[in-house]
Amino acid sequence: MATIDALLANRVRGLRGSAIREIFKVTQQPEVISFAGGLPAPEMFPVKELAEISQDILLHKGAIALQYGITEGYGPLKELVKNRMQAQGIWSDQDDVVIMSGAQQGIDLTAKIFLNEGDGVICENPSFIGALNSFRAYKGVIHPVEIEDDGMNVEQAEEILKSNPSIKLIYTIATFQNPSGITMSLEKRKRLIELAEKYDVFIIEDNPYGELRFKGEEIPTIKSMDTSGRVIYVGSFSKILSPGLRLGWIIARPEVLQPIVVCKQVNDVHTNVFSQMIAAEYLTRYSIDEHIGKIRKLYGHKCGYMLECMEKYFPDFCKYTRPEGGLFIWCTLPEKYNSLDVLKKSLERKVAFVPGSTAMADMDKPSSSFRLNYSTMTDERIEEGIRILGEVLKSL
Amino acid sequence: MATIDALLANRVRGLRGSAIREIFKVTQQPEVISFAGGLPAPEMFPVKELAEISQDILLHKGAIALQYGITEGYGPLKELVKNRMQAQGIWSDQDDVVIMSGAQQGIDLTAKIFLNEGDGVICENPSFIGALNSFRAYKGVIHPVEIEDDGMNVEQAEEILKSNPSIKLIYTIATFQNPSGITMSLEKRKRLIELAEKYDVFIIEDNPYGELRFKGEEIPTIKSMDTSGRVIYVGSFSKILSPGLRLGWIIARPEVLQPIVVCKQVNDVHTNVFSQMIAAEYLTRYSIDEHIGKIRKLYGHKCGYMLECMEKYFPDFCKYTRPEGGLFIWCTLPEKYNSLDVLKKSLERKVAFVPGSTAMADMDKPSSSFRLNYSTMTDERIEEGIRILGEVLKSL
Repeated sequence: MATIDALLANRVRGLRGSAIREIFKVTQQPEVISFAGGLPAPEMFPVKELAEISQDILLHKGAIALQYGITEGYGPLKELVKNRMQAQGIWSDQDDVVIMSGAQQGIDLTAKIFLNEGDGVICENPSFIGALNSFRAYKGVIHPVEIEDDGMNVEQAEEILKSNPSIKLIYTIATFQNPSGITMSLEKRKRLIELAEKYDVFIIEDNPYGELRFKGEEIPTIKSMDTSGRVIYVGSFSKILSPGLRLGWIIARPEVLQPIVVCKQVNDVHTNVFSQMIAAEYLTRYSIDEHIGKIRKLYGHKCGYMLECMEKYFPDFCKYTRPEGGLFIWCTLPEKYNSLDVLKKSLERKVAFVPGSTAMADMDKPSSSFRLNYSTMTDERIEEGIRILGEVLKSL
Repeated sequence: MATIDALLANRVRGLRGSAIREIFKVTQQPEVISFAGGLPAPEMFPVKELAEISQDILLHKGAIALQYGITEGYGPLKELVKNRMQAQGIWSDQDDVVIMSGAQQGIDLTAKIFLNEGDGVICENPSFIGALNSFRAYKGVIHPVEIEDDGMNVEQAEEILKSNPSIKLIYTIATFQNPSGITMSLEKRKRLIELAEKYDVFIIEDNPYGELRFKGEEIPTIKSMDTSGRVIYVGSFSKILSPGLRLGWIIARPEVLQPIVVCKQVNDVHTNVFSQMIAAEYLTRYSIDEHIGKIRKLYGHKCGYMLECMEKYFPDFCKYTRPEGGLFIWCTLPEKYNSLDVLKKSLERKVAFVPGSTAMADMDKPSSSFRLNYSTMTDERIEEGIRILGEVLKSL
């Protein structure tokens, strides 16, 4: 088997697995207090409702749920997603929707249809490792742009667009960005659409956290302000219903969705039909907005509680964001520290988080930042974990 | 939106959706008698058992079923698949297993980790369009090899290997091949392993139908005779339990699976957890072998019945295979006929099948062959459809 390395495609050489998912394996040990991962609060899963729905579907529509389906998605779910997106101003009359096996597949196949080797993608730095790795896997070139308090530095983005004609995509998590928790201002969102038009590129608006606001004012999605079909909107059921069901969607012009559908056909034929029917039935029988309201309230509480604990236990030299929604707090230490070293020490004491370097365009450069997730642990474990982490930080 | 075509990656230019899946959309109209598609018999889905299992899982392990999972797959399901594969001689002690979101994902990601633009794949001609399109989507070059009554022409395969050093993969559905229904002989299977070793390539053994034998003698899988780790085995729950759940698996050496797992992470993070738990629980509570026994019996009956009807209604100039398992009968008309023309005429009379050209390496070349599926329709509709098709053929 000396030959496997010689036979591998260039695209997977040097491609590394997500450190987050490696850490996630450790965090499945129940004694670990995990602020790593981006897991939604399991106590929010509507298990009873979904159990009833599952049984009803299998007993009454089992032959549909268990059979092959259509690549574009289960019709009733497409319609329900369309209606929600329409109500949120995200849907335009020229759009269409395709159900994906999670938002990640939406990002991955969008990368697949656009990127030749060497084509560029502008990304916030830090950004979501899953998306960055999708771009890397098609040999795309990531052009990192710094994030300011009001989102991506759009001047820097324009400078990069000016001097790199091979750029095809701008990837942004505009609302409650992962990992920084930052939300892009209205002005910058409008500016980004102008840039996309001027430089003939597409914007991927990845919005898994947009509905999880627990503070401050709503800001319109980029997609809702797009009149020229430049924005490819990627949505997800993972944070508002369940990630285990692997359901997401893309809204874009048919010209964009058509090649994505062809690629989805050869990727996984279609998304799990049973899951799609479960989601459709949940949206029909219950108010998901009411459900999301409960999640917002819980996350607002958990975020506030974690911030309180951080004020109490963290040393002053650790700075952090105060998010208005989403799942993450982003912490930054003085530059001399490497958060990977901090992680090693904290894992010895059974506390896990995500080191900043994993979210950077250049993963090899040490980062003094790290990401804390507040959605999964109980209040008791949040306090205990932050107390331990505070001790680790103070011992540096 | 004049720009979308200019911005698309080379890999998707000229890539066409599966004609089968386009036909499948038509065949969802209940009045159509469809011998297209490869849908398993819906009356075989164990709906009651799965309804009970689904409810139990959500009520007692909902927090696991609905949460994010591990990319490699749900532990208990991996173990159960391993045990079945071990019992069938397919598993070697050096192997590992990864659960995929259907076998198609297994093929697609295997293509992704091996194929640079221009790298070659040897395929039976005709072959499974989903696999062919995966290879095309990574700009792989398909080297078609004719199928004889005992499977792929291995001499022709060796000639191609000799003169094309860029070949990396041999793709075969050795048992009850799709679409031809042909099974490769033991001698040719052994010879294929020798070729893989000699020319330093890997074999993808795609085996979705292998357990569906209703006649004749079992032949060992290629994987079970492989001692050098050259065979990547792709299995599927689609034809033995349910395709809607999207569950497949790959068995190979860890060196092969490691890059596949990295690509799966960026493709769909992990396979639907709820589905994996349903399959695991079904394998634990029930005998899937007993269940498969029932499917074999039904398909044996349906295949026999369709062949009887074909003898009665088809003109003599239509030749066809007499499969010992699987889902398909492969028909061949005299060369002057184009099965695409036959399809148009038969669709007017609400009977659908798959024209041969869609399964060929060169899809633009007219084919006088076509594929009939016998697993989905009732006996009444089989007779009615074959009678109509016979009339269409006689009218040519």
